[in-house]
Amino acid sequence: MKSKGNLIVISGPSGSGKGTVCHALTEENPGLLVSVSATTRKPRGVEQDGIDYFFLTREQFEEMIAADRLLEWADVYGNYYGTPREPVEKNLSGGRDVILEIDVQGGLQIKNKYPQCVLIFLIPPSRSQLATRLKQRGTDSAGDIERRLSWAERELKEVHKYDYLVINDQVEAAARKINAIVTAESCRPALMDVESFLKTNW
Amino acid sequence: MKSKGNLIVISGPSGSGKGTVCHALTEENPGLLVSVSATTRKPRGVEQDGIDYFFLTREQFEEMIAADRLLEWADVYGNYYGTPREPVEKNLSGGRDVILEIDVQGGLQIKNKYPQCVLIFLIPPSRSQLATRLKQRGTDSAGDIERRLSWAERELKEVHKYDYLVINDQVEAAARKINAIVTAESCRPALMDVESFLKTNW
Repeated sequence: MKSKGNLIVISGPSGSGKGTVCHALTEENPGLLVSVSATTRKPRGVEQDGIDYFFLTREQFEEMIAADRLLEWADVYGNYYGTPREPVEKNLSGGRDVILEIDVQGGLQIKNKYPQCVLIFLIPPSRSQLATRLKQRGTDSAGDIERRLSWAERELKEVHKYDYLVINDQVEAAARKINAIVTAESCRPALMDVESFLKTNW
Repeated sequence: MKSKGNLIVISGPSGSGKGTVCHALTEENPGLLVSVSATTRKPRGVEQDGIDYFFLTREQFEEMIAADRLLEWADVYGNYYGTPREPVEKNLSGGRDVILEIDVQGGLQIKNKYPQCVLIFLIPPSRSQLATRLKQRGTDSAGDIERRLSWAERELKEVHKYDYLVINDQVEAAARKINAIVTAESCRPALMDVESFLKTNW
């Protein structure tokens, strides 16, 4: 009797493994839709436009801001990141759960606009493991890595504003926990059309 | 880094299949402890004292009420039912999740005393299926069944006070959903010792 989709926000510091966990999540639960963010940063490695991100120019991005076509946006390390509004709202009203994989400031912006959204904080098991992951990624300079680590420390101070906290020590275990959260949140009476269920069946 | 157990209340009308679902639940997740209720009603069929219920006399039950040794209690169809306090509190503070399988009025009493508890409403798929189950159980007269059905209708009006709503159309599916709720609720920041985790790892 589910009638509305849930907006699930997965946040966490850069390098916390959000992308990998989201991939494992949708493998296990193909009904989930992961929203594709827009950004003005350059593609990394095999990243594809329209799949990993919508890669936009600064002018294009600023036009979307001006037209209120972004649910949230931020300027991170000099690049814009944002969530296009239309595909999210269309899927939610069609009853499909939508995952947003965004940073902590974006997650809190979303909670302000959609208080019924579900905020999940994905946290790397330790500072040293986060440093190792960022080094292994090989896309940042030593200075960038230090900057990302201090930023992560600031983001971790916001954990208590999140609904759920998942430690990403193992990708499969973290994805399983997030899938459990998605299932649980689909059982909220507020999401369901309880009245018409009772009228029909009782 | 979990430090406290969750108190999970599963409520639902008589005949909603709470007992069967709880059994499937603990088969899949043996870490869960299902609290054993006390009652003054007579044992049915193979029910065993200390396993299915603590079967007490009215005098014994009233002594427990007087000594505040029950978390909640009620007089249902002329029999007392209640939840002994001590085993629940001991397990929760030891970090173990505890399941209470109680009726709706009991569930709401628990929420008043423990606002952080998790209320799950287990609902039979329809009035006619509930009637069939009650008849098949073969323990109630036709008059008793009618009384239980009207009582169920009254209880269903409280659904919106519950945190989660699970339709019991298939036992395994319902148990899987409740297990997902248990997993999700173990990821609440308030349950975890976040500060000492951050101090140690960050």
